[in-house]
Amino acid sequence: MLIVLRLGHRLPRDERITTHVCLVARAFGADEIIYSGQKDKGLEKSVKKIVSDWGGNFKIGYTEDPVGLIKEFKEKDFYILHLTMYGFGMEEMKKEKGRNTLIIIGGGKVPSEVYGLADFNISITNQPHSEVAALAITLDRLFKGKELKLEFKGKKRIVPSARGKKLTEF
Amino acid sequence: MLIVLRLGHRLPRDERITTHVCLVARAFGADEIIYSGQKDKGLEKSVKKIVSDWGGNFKIGYTEDPVGLIKEFKEKDFYILHLTMYGFGMEEMKKEKGRNTLIIIGGGKVPSEVYGLADFNISITNQPHSEVAALAITLDRLFKGKELKLEFKGKKRIVPSARGKKLTEF
Repeated sequence: MLIVLRLGHRLPRDERITTHVCLVARAFGADEIIYSGQKDKGLEKSVKKIVSDWGGNFKIGYTEDPVGLIKEFKEKDFYILHLTMYGFGMEEMKKEKGRNTLIIIGGGKVPSEVYGLADFNISITNQPHSEVAALAITLDRLFKGKELKLEFKGKKRIVPSARGKKLTEF
Repeated sequence: MLIVLRLGHRLPRDERITTHVCLVARAFGADEIIYSGQKDKGLEKSVKKIVSDWGGNFKIGYTEDPVGLIKEFKEKDFYILHLTMYGFGMEEMKKEKGRNTLIIIGGGKVPSEVYGLADFNISITNQPHSEVAALAITLDRLFKGKELKLEFKGKKRIVPSARGKKLTEF
């Protein structure tokens, strides 16, 4: 089980970035995303529409108490990874094969407790860039590139082609 | 030389996504980004500020004629990669060691000519997700993970730490 927790969603500022975070989580093999901050029905609707059209069992949930939620996941023995530009690189991370994992991604201000609750504060480079990219690279390393080969048996499917666009609908 | 071309920037819709695209391009080792669509002085200013604070020689430019620009790069023998959800996976890509490369990323509607001009239409999964993530994974594969170790000697530098935030200013 791999769950992503997106902290501090802000409207309208984070509307598209959080959508991209959700879609990357789904396309790269996470089971669920939970977000905190401002409740956003449009976000939830568009993620559910993607799942309904493109397949898979990806879920989206919301929490008003992200720190409490992290504590609950710790009690359930989830491995807690926090993506931050201030942490160590992934190569320093202890491998936790087969363990359920919670990946935390910042948004607005990250509560300082999160740094302490995390088993590992990972940085994907120590440069400012994007939580979307940081999540993609983290999932890529955790799944060892196999996430790029996932098959989703959705109503909509792309037929890869050298040039142009081929989309089939079932 | 590795240049990223971001097509069809729309305001205000793409404001933050294009910023993330620029920051990923810089942090993951590209030399320059050129964007088309709506001219955005705020975007240019914030990218220049990041470079001034965090270091490196990354540049941002603008074009009104992206198709013409792609043709110019082809004439200069750049290897033209177009990221699209409709293409083949990277493992099918011909390796072009040491060749200058232009990576094209969509935005609004991508002109159909782009599919024909590209040497390779790559898809990072055939699922809907994010151009930010697609760019990050592509640069990661082209630079074989070395991009995560780049050093930028900027005024602002992070001192990686297990917990908390350490930032030094020179």
